[in-house]
Amino acid sequence: MAPILLNCTGSDHQEYIKQQVQVKNPYLDTMEEDILYHFSLSTKTHNLPEMFGDIKFVCVGGSANRMKSFAQFIHQELKLPGNPEEVRDICEGTDRYCMYKVGPVLSISHGMGVPSISIMLHELIKLLHHAQCRDVVLFRLGTSGGVGLAPGTVVITDKAVDYSFRPQFEQVVLGKVITRSTELDEGVAGELLQCSSELQNFPTVIGKTMCTHDFYEGQGRLDGALCSFSHEEKLEYLRKAYEAGVRNIEMESTVFAAMCRVCGLKAAVICVALLNRFEGDQITSPHDVLVEYQQRPQVLVSHFIKKRLGLAA
Amino acid sequence: MAPILLNCTGSDHQEYIKQQVQVKNPYLDTMEEDILYHFSLSTKTHNLPEMFGDIKFVCVGGSANRMKSFAQFIHQELKLPGNPEEVRDICEGTDRYCMYKVGPVLSISHGMGVPSISIMLHELIKLLHHAQCRDVVLFRLGTSGGVGLAPGTVVITDKAVDYSFRPQFEQVVLGKVITRSTELDEGVAGELLQCSSELQNFPTVIGKTMCTHDFYEGQGRLDGALCSFSHEEKLEYLRKAYEAGVRNIEMESTVFAAMCRVCGLKAAVICVALLNRFEGDQITSPHDVLVEYQQRPQVLVSHFIKKRLGLAA
Repeated sequence: MAPILLNCTGSDHQEYIKQQVQVKNPYLDTMEEDILYHFSLSTKTHNLPEMFGDIKFVCVGGSANRMKSFAQFIHQELKLPGNPEEVRDICEGTDRYCMYKVGPVLSISHGMGVPSISIMLHELIKLLHHAQCRDVVLFRLGTSGGVGLAPGTVVITDKAVDYSFRPQFEQVVLGKVITRSTELDEGVAGELLQCSSELQNFPTVIGKTMCTHDFYEGQGRLDGALCSFSHEEKLEYLRKAYEAGVRNIEMESTVFAAMCRVCGLKAAVICVALLNRFEGDQITSPHDVLVEYQQRPQVLVSHFIKKRLGLAA
Repeated sequence: MAPILLNCTGSDHQEYIKQQVQVKNPYLDTMEEDILYHFSLSTKTHNLPEMFGDIKFVCVGGSANRMKSFAQFIHQELKLPGNPEEVRDICEGTDRYCMYKVGPVLSISHGMGVPSISIMLHELIKLLHHAQCRDVVLFRLGTSGGVGLAPGTVVITDKAVDYSFRPQFEQVVLGKVITRSTELDEGVAGELLQCSSELQNFPTVIGKTMCTHDFYEGQGRLDGALCSFSHEEKLEYLRKAYEAGVRNIEMESTVFAAMCRVCGLKAAVICVALLNRFEGDQITSPHDVLVEYQQRPQVLVSHFIKKRLGLAA
């Protein structure tokens, strides 16, 4: 096994950042055709450089409806010509993911959990490589459970951590477990925090984000079909997480951070806390309040993109 | 932590099978309201016993479109009144999952990967419990990569195994890893095999199904964004899997088997192989061929349900 993907925890990745998007697979460029199966795209049937070559910002999130709304929102924010309502799903040949392109911004859904986002990321990184994209920044815009935060607070992740609060992602390769670093780009996180301070009434923190592989037992919820622990044991686990610097819990950040890092892509995770897990497990806020919360990561990333493009006030 | 969910690998679960669906959570019945957040249903806003009390068969699969097609197909097969085209998504308030009810059959999508299906299963088992359902059988109808099988072969799973071919599922509970058995119901698997022999040109085997947490590195694919192993190392891993009895690879079976077992639900996994992984990694069959393959698990389960209901020839 080549050493480059093994326990890849070093910080010497600067050399990739200004370059073309890097796949780490020596076989890829020898393939006659690459079918991006879960996008329903292929290098033979689609001109990927023409379709995607100008992409500079990729925004991903779990829900298909939310990522469509984001595409329409950023269309308005960037004051692009055409009707935002008419954005077209580029992956309409499949229902696994949806994808919208709005100027230099790509908006893609990834479903829930590490395996689902991991399939999307493999095919996205190959897409950006085939399309010869350069200097791309990736953002995950999500929802999460807050740890000691008021509902509605936006968390910018500095490190994604696992269930033991370690900044690493365990990947199985041919039956062997290897670990990869989950540190995210400090510069982008700092820029996002600066952006949040320029917005009105926009509670934002930087902190660690814990990524779990389920929503109930793994996150210490007392309201799943299975629960074998007490309220006090749950609170103790959440307290330990808080003391380790964890400010929110979601289900995709570790593999997102790890894969972007290995491929030299600058990346950030921005999730809103829908509830404070010290106070409860169920998401009981009214629908309109939740909708407004879910827009906050979109508003923040839109502000970042507009500043980068010289369009912000 | 209560012992009942710890290392639950015993076989003495027969007592649950003829009973009401069992949640394994002492807190659940004390809750004033239970919001099934990812279904957009709740015990306060929906009369779950009235909506779901007569459910006897639950069929789950990754793709929303495919589970809608299955609902329409089983509607025709059961010769139910009304227009199959008009089946309504019960979870239309959310885009996380879709759900259709057709007589005693519930058809639900679960997305891709263990975390995604696990959220769905927690809320499904709670739904069946709140609805006071009895004698329910669950089926996962999926697609998979075949290991030494011709494309189009249907695999009925006897045991779901992990990346080391062990029949177990590792679940993190409050930061601790516990293991659960992934054996499936022998009786239902045997009945399904008998059903397959009654259908024309229906290549079917019983075997182990390996469940991985990603589609590329974990399954030994050479065509992901990351690949650090050789063609020969890939084939060696697949050969070891074959020797251990693995006949196909997918991404949800272990948690499906484990959760159904803990809750005393009879369950089966039926996946069609879209390709033979000894021959390649990319899914290159024409669209119409893939569509026909994907219908095979549906045809088999439909035949099973019709026999159980006394409707088969």
